Amino acid sequence: MSKMYVVGIGPGGYEYMTIKAANVLKEVDVIVGYTVYIDLVKDQFPDKEFLSTPMRKEVDRCRLAFEEAAKGKNVAMICSGDAGVYGMSGLMLTIGAEEFPDIPVEIVSGVTATLSGASVLGAPLIHDFAVISLSDLLTPWEVIVKRIEAAAESDMAICFYNPSSKKRHDYLQKACDIILKHRSPENVCGTVENIGREGESFKVYTLKELRDTQVDMFTTVFVGNSKTQVINGRMVTPRGYRGVED
Amino acid sequence: MSKMYVVGIGPGGYEYMTIKAANVLKEVDVIVGYTVYIDLVKDQFPDKEFLSTPMRKEVDRCRLAFEEAAKGKNVAMICSGDAGVYGMSGLMLTIGAEEFPDIPVEIVSGVTATLSGASVLGAPLIHDFAVISLSDLLTPWEVIVKRIEAAAESDMAICFYNPSSKKRHDYLQKACDIILKHRSPENVCGTVENIGREGESFKVYTLKELRDTQVDMFTTVFVGNSKTQVINGRMVTPRGYRGVED
Repeated sequence: MSKMYVVGIGPGGYEYMTIKAANVLKEVDVIVGYTVYIDLVKDQFPDKEFLSTPMRKEVDRCRLAFEEAAKGKNVAMICSGDAGVYGMSGLMLTIGAEEFPDIPVEIVSGVTATLSGASVLGAPLIHDFAVISLSDLLTPWEVIVKRIEAAAESDMAICFYNPSSKKRHDYLQKACDIILKHRSPENVCGTVENIGREGESFKVYTLKELRDTQVDMFTTVFVGNSKTQVINGRMVTPRGYRGVED
Repeated sequence: MSKMYVVGIGPGGYEYMTIKAANVLKEVDVIVGYTVYIDLVKDQFPDKEFLSTPMRKEVDRCRLAFEEAAKGKNVAMICSGDAGVYGMSGLMLTIGAEEFPDIPVEIVSGVTATLSGASVLGAPLIHDFAVISLSDLLTPWEVIVKRIEAAAESDMAICFYNPSSKKRHDYLQKACDIILKHRSPENVCGTVENIGREGESFKVYTLKELRDTQVDMFTTVFVGNSKTQVINGRMVTPRGYRGVED
């Protein structure tokens, strides 16, 4: 019987994929994904059939993938990062269960921007952290505010996805203002652009500086906890609250 | 000049490693790590020199790695999962900067248990989430409580690391009691054991059931948000608060 895989391909470059993800993509007949992700893997798997739908047509993209599997083909739906973090694995399991219950779905993890971005910046997430998207496309802004507040007040490090867009150019500023109610303006922060792709770069800021910085949608933003330090130009969060040597 | 890598090897099996991690381990002269992690990679890289120190001797292990690099060897310090999530990358950057400033340190991301565990359970972390360790070895219990409270109240999904040990057999129960103040007893939860290794298994619970479940230290625990559903026996969190089709 045909099989459906939902595969996180990591931040971009082929080498950031897991060996399992690469093996699955080698094995399947069809690779389905958003156009930008297809472009990232096309050269490595030239003999595959590639199918895509535009951004925001996620439900159509899932159905397209299952329809191929229903024809007897093995199919991989690809996502950047990890398919389970703001990715397609939930929708694939839902649509699969409702409309294609006979096709088994296997999810193959990948390195999400939280992890790959952290490794570029240093070690901002060594201790407890929250992952929050600033996109209010599917989530009311009040819910997002409550989560930023919660993470700031309980001194978790924070990784922000979707920190900006044309319509939401001031959302990161708003988020920083909320955090500033609970943290020092000197709280260490950082941004990473184009993780694992050409033009990868990072920058370390204070929270106050980050507030007045304009980032684009290809940026992942990190806010350290109150103990995060700048060591040799990189963001480093200690393993706890009792000192490094404990 | 010699180089130091800090490498997350993922949940266990070789195929869950990134291609980059495997390439780095092939290239280096020495692999340093906690004994259990060395055992996971030994067979795949038989020609390497392996060095390890016991658990909790992390600072010694870092120095051991840098001392090898100082002899002119290329060295990889390995961690399970991702080196930046409760891993060694922070300590390596700190000790490196203080004691071995001439040795460059590169961090290579891996799939942490949050991601690999989620892929086994389904899609519990599709939306915002918090990652919290229940170990109070380096963190005061009051700080941990505050974070559980914050994540529960702001309706984030939660992934708990270190949910149990001999001394802390009732910590998960305490954590569930805190969450129950803000969430329904029916809130969907799940556990995964031996992720990516022999004996991998998962179980889905209600929050009330999880409260009365004893888990061991090889278990990763997931608490969904209030919208998380059980679909076809797996945990699925929607992409937002406006319905799947939005």
